[in-house]
Amino acid sequence: MHPDSAVAFFGDNQPLQLDSGIVLSSFQIAYQTYGTLNADKSNAILICHPLTCDQHVANPHPVTGKPGWWENLVGPGSIVDTQRYFVICSNVIGGCLGSTGPASVNPQTRKAYALDFPVITIGDMVCAQAMLVDRLGIDTLFSIIGGSMGGMQVLQWASFCKERVFSAVILASSARHSAQNIAFGEIGRQAVMADPDWQDGWYIEAGTNPRKGLAVARMTAHITYLSGATLHRKFGRNLQERSQITFGFDADFQIESYLRHQGVTFVERFDANSYLYLTRAMDYFDLAAEHGGRLANAFSKTGTRFFVASFSSDWLFPTRESRIIVHALNAAGASVSFAEFETDKGHDAFLLNEPVMFSAVNGFLQSAARARGLEK
Amino acid sequence: MHPDSAVAFFGDNQPLQLDSGIVLSSFQIAYQTYGTLNADKSNAILICHPLTCDQHVANPHPVTGKPGWWENLVGPGSIVDTQRYFVICSNVIGGCLGSTGPASVNPQTRKAYALDFPVITIGDMVCAQAMLVDRLGIDTLFSIIGGSMGGMQVLQWASFCKERVFSAVILASSARHSAQNIAFGEIGRQAVMADPDWQDGWYIEAGTNPRKGLAVARMTAHITYLSGATLHRKFGRNLQERSQITFGFDADFQIESYLRHQGVTFVERFDANSYLYLTRAMDYFDLAAEHGGRLANAFSKTGTRFFVASFSSDWLFPTRESRIIVHALNAAGASVSFAEFETDKGHDAFLLNEPVMFSAVNGFLQSAARARGLEK
Repeated sequence: MHPDSAVAFFGDNQPLQLDSGIVLSSFQIAYQTYGTLNADKSNAILICHPLTCDQHVANPHPVTGKPGWWENLVGPGSIVDTQRYFVICSNVIGGCLGSTGPASVNPQTRKAYALDFPVITIGDMVCAQAMLVDRLGIDTLFSIIGGSMGGMQVLQWASFCKERVFSAVILASSARHSAQNIAFGEIGRQAVMADPDWQDGWYIEAGTNPRKGLAVARMTAHITYLSGATLHRKFGRNLQERSQITFGFDADFQIESYLRHQGVTFVERFDANSYLYLTRAMDYFDLAAEHGGRLANAFSKTGTRFFVASFSSDWLFPTRESRIIVHALNAAGASVSFAEFETDKGHDAFLLNEPVMFSAVNGFLQSAARARGLEK
Repeated sequence: MHPDSAVAFFGDNQPLQLDSGIVLSSFQIAYQTYGTLNADKSNAILICHPLTCDQHVANPHPVTGKPGWWENLVGPGSIVDTQRYFVICSNVIGGCLGSTGPASVNPQTRKAYALDFPVITIGDMVCAQAMLVDRLGIDTLFSIIGGSMGGMQVLQWASFCKERVFSAVILASSARHSAQNIAFGEIGRQAVMADPDWQDGWYIEAGTNPRKGLAVARMTAHITYLSGATLHRKFGRNLQERSQITFGFDADFQIESYLRHQGVTFVERFDANSYLYLTRAMDYFDLAAEHGGRLANAFSKTGTRFFVASFSSDWLFPTRESRIIVHALNAAGASVSFAEFETDKGHDAFLLNEPVMFSAVNGFLQSAARARGLEK
């Protein structure tokens, strides 16, 4: 499966102890690396992927053929310079691009796990990543970088493995899923579950695929990734390949055609149950709750350098959520830089070519590299 | 059908010429009235209902038994005082509470219209309402009041029947559906259409009902009616009748339980095809486009007094959309008052008990009543 990626297997002797109390013995993590680990193993950067991305951060995607999802940021000569750093990106546990997830074969039944796969958390994702980093022989990561669900993983790393994180970049993220975030997560899950082809979760065994439900879930999520202003600028009320409205339910408007396309292409590359599990992991994320209700406790005695950024038109992970993180880091006496970038591009901005954001991340990494003794 | 409401029948001799070019001969409009029309027929107020409301503005709902949807505003001694005014509220054409819509019997086939029902517009809704107002023997309405889709109807009245509108109240509305509005409309329709019980629209004949799809549509729409701040205040991350997360896909969080309830109860009182038709009518609404691309032209030479209001946390019909209306009215030399009310309640605020908004509407109506010679 996915020969493009390396795969780390973990057998019964290295089980994953999940937050639910369940033990996942025998699992695998698919990952990509770029660049070369230096002699003292001090130049490793872990990229944590958001919900619907995967380990293919800086190479063409094996299913879609599209460029890596963060090639703007990661590559030879880029800000996360793969000629300088050893970059690791792994598919999260629960995912569907090679890491063990609900579509993987359950060794006990030799059928797909489906809903027998245990519900996982952001913490579980990070534990599995940490086992991969161990396997690669790396003790301390020079940096961990992630946006959105990726940023949640960075926060989790910086809280639970703080001695292993020299620097951390958290973009367009939050230390908890808000009520509105959970609401949209629930919409996505209900859309999938309403599709009879979901087969109560056992669609692989049934030979079906809840394409329509997953497409609706994706379409809904996609709206939340963009700002109203972006939608207005890109689409407005423009008609799709017609000069007049048709008085029907076809995609008269470009925005309708665009969303339908987003839905249809997504189901080609994503597993519906993975979508349920990963959105659930995000819903469950509440870092303060894991530290007695005080977020600053999550970062006590941290030596990690932090960079936190938000985007002015991001209404899914708005600036106020980043400020909560920053205030907690301040209260914990951490080293933290914070920026809110002006853009009309909404949540998606962290994945796009945003020069001001890139130059800030670049400055932060350069400074951290000097502190780490990683002179060019 | 719906004996609680009066019904105005229009036969072949009074067809409705639709914007699509189709002629709807033989249709009916269900309506409620409250209060008494005065001798010179100058005290009539038309209330235009939003998407999922109906004619039961100030009496218990015949299906749900709940109070009228705007009893805060309309009733004996209320701001829209039914002891003083003659209040009319009719179910829109295309609706499902007694007015002719896709669930009505097509006289040509003696089966439900389903998708043979013509796609209607906000303009068509207003034409049908105007025929009802004619039938009631009223020439000029003292006021027309509506929020959201109701506000679109008010704008349409004030543009196309301007001599019949003495005053107009437009709350939380817009002169066009934005790209983001259309996007959410499309999500709702796709959710319904993805449900196999929709039966390509012919579910009444098939004896099915796309409950799951319509519930997902409603849940999605419901999020857009509330602000993130309201969701945080009302639900936050509170758990639903449990002390810990269950590591599953049940409604662990109150917000999930609330949304599921919204979905389930909605399908008991609303027809899925009506939902498609009415959201489509909103998508198609673009008053400027009907006037050469200049919204001010819609209101040229108007003598109507306008009150336009928005709510600060309404992200579905944000203040900037109300400002566009107000600027056009200004450019047309109209009499217009505008207010943005501070609230965290989002789009729904126009339906809720908002004292500052109510007192502004009250002041506007009192002043208009004096100008109209409707002294108490």
